[in-house]
Amino acid sequence: MNVLIVYAHPEPRSLNGALRDFAVQRLEAAGHAVQVSDLYAMNWKATLDADDVTDRPPAARFDPSLDSKRAFAQGTQRDDIAREQAKLKWADAVILQFPMWWFSMPAIMKGWVERVYAYGFAYGVGEHSDTHWGDRYGEGSLAGKRAMLVVTTGGWESHYGPRGINGPIDDVLFPIQHGILYYPGFEVLPPFVIYRSGKMDDARFAQTRDALGERLDGLWATPPIPFRRQNAGDYEIPALTLKEDVAPERVGFAAHVDGAGR
Amino acid sequence: MNVLIVYAHPEPRSLNGALRDFAVQRLEAAGHAVQVSDLYAMNWKATLDADDVTDRPPAARFDPSLDSKRAFAQGTQRDDIAREQAKLKWADAVILQFPMWWFSMPAIMKGWVERVYAYGFAYGVGEHSDTHWGDRYGEGSLAGKRAMLVVTTGGWESHYGPRGINGPIDDVLFPIQHGILYYPGFEVLPPFVIYRSGKMDDARFAQTRDALGERLDGLWATPPIPFRRQNAGDYEIPALTLKEDVAPERVGFAAHVDGAGR
Repeated sequence: MNVLIVYAHPEPRSLNGALRDFAVQRLEAAGHAVQVSDLYAMNWKATLDADDVTDRPPAARFDPSLDSKRAFAQGTQRDDIAREQAKLKWADAVILQFPMWWFSMPAIMKGWVERVYAYGFAYGVGEHSDTHWGDRYGEGSLAGKRAMLVVTTGGWESHYGPRGINGPIDDVLFPIQHGILYYPGFEVLPPFVIYRSGKMDDARFAQTRDALGERLDGLWATPPIPFRRQNAGDYEIPALTLKEDVAPERVGFAAHVDGAGR
Repeated sequence: MNVLIVYAHPEPRSLNGALRDFAVQRLEAAGHAVQVSDLYAMNWKATLDADDVTDRPPAARFDPSLDSKRAFAQGTQRDDIAREQAKLKWADAVILQFPMWWFSMPAIMKGWVERVYAYGFAYGVGEHSDTHWGDRYGEGSLAGKRAMLVVTTGGWESHYGPRGINGPIDDVLFPIQHGILYYPGFEVLPPFVIYRSGKMDDARFAQTRDALGERLDGLWATPPIPFRRQNAGDYEIPALTLKEDVAPERVGFAAHVDGAGR
């Protein structure tokens, strides 16, 4: 199978760098083809702007959505964007690996999402009708592919527990796992999270590496998070609220996971 | 009073641009001093990297936290970072205005947070003991200041309702409001959110502008979101989980708001 690792850490001689190298080796040893988009090493342009479209009259008003739509349809996107889209099409599985900074992905990776996720590629796909509100949240251009986060964080596991001060890790990652990965069609596997990344000794590193190895071995066998499909009957359209009889007691992010405990 | 608007939209001739201009006028007309950090116009460097520290041996291993700590302490940060820190110190209130892209702030603003929020400035502040786990979540360098988000989103209000598919807006914004603003000490006002930003006619724009004006007039009177203070007795230290007798039935983001309905 084909695996794309999108990776964002400024220092190769880091915990993230070591785990990235390990992941590539482990996947290749299992016979998979691996590509790495090492965003720092690529000097990835983080900022979405008018320069992302190569055929604009310079004085024209820039519309991030509509210019993206036209450029994607007409093949006038910047080359760096088109190359990443081709990698996504090539991949059977995508791993986003990053240190959590301020409760989300580093800016350079957020900019990868914003620029690569063109209108017509990752959103604005499919028809809108009374029963179908675009191909998204379970359908879309990236349907049939799997995705997984590999995340390091300085905080402790308890800080990200159900009643931890930072909020539950599943909720902190929901805007990424549901909003960025499930939205264009990925099946999203449970994340691999490394807590207290600043307190890593040799024994804990070996343990972490082995646990990551098992997750990589299970990339095609691990059940994905059962997010609810937008157009499969659970939601009112176009309000996109859960129907009254679907998990009637529940609100918030977890209500969009079928069978979650709360 | 002094108000800093940190603003991120690539096109001045946009809804965001019009609301930004209106906000500056309204605040100045009320006698406030206003500075705007227009990140696109400033060509803000979005990516945190080793170039942010001016006194590093080029071959040294780059540690985002420890290099930030040393550079902040020794005055060897890049000038653009120090200038933004000075604006934050000057401000009595800070407004972050942005279009929501993929359920968070644009990369260029995320990079503003990552680079300006130095170790020793926005985190890594205060002592750690059995009763006090750093000056954060209600204490910190920015305590005594107020902050508010002004956010546009293409989605409908129902999509961000309690059972809406994108998740409740308060939860989508929690990593920013609690994790980025409350963490270093800001009092955080309820956000001003404009839904269906693509469907704005003159009447709705006038209504939106007036509603924003009222929120700006109330910048010093509006009660902040009652996030729980980390070191005031609600949390176990160092686990940083809510004590058993604090909102015992509740989990998730909302548990960290005193008196919230769920």
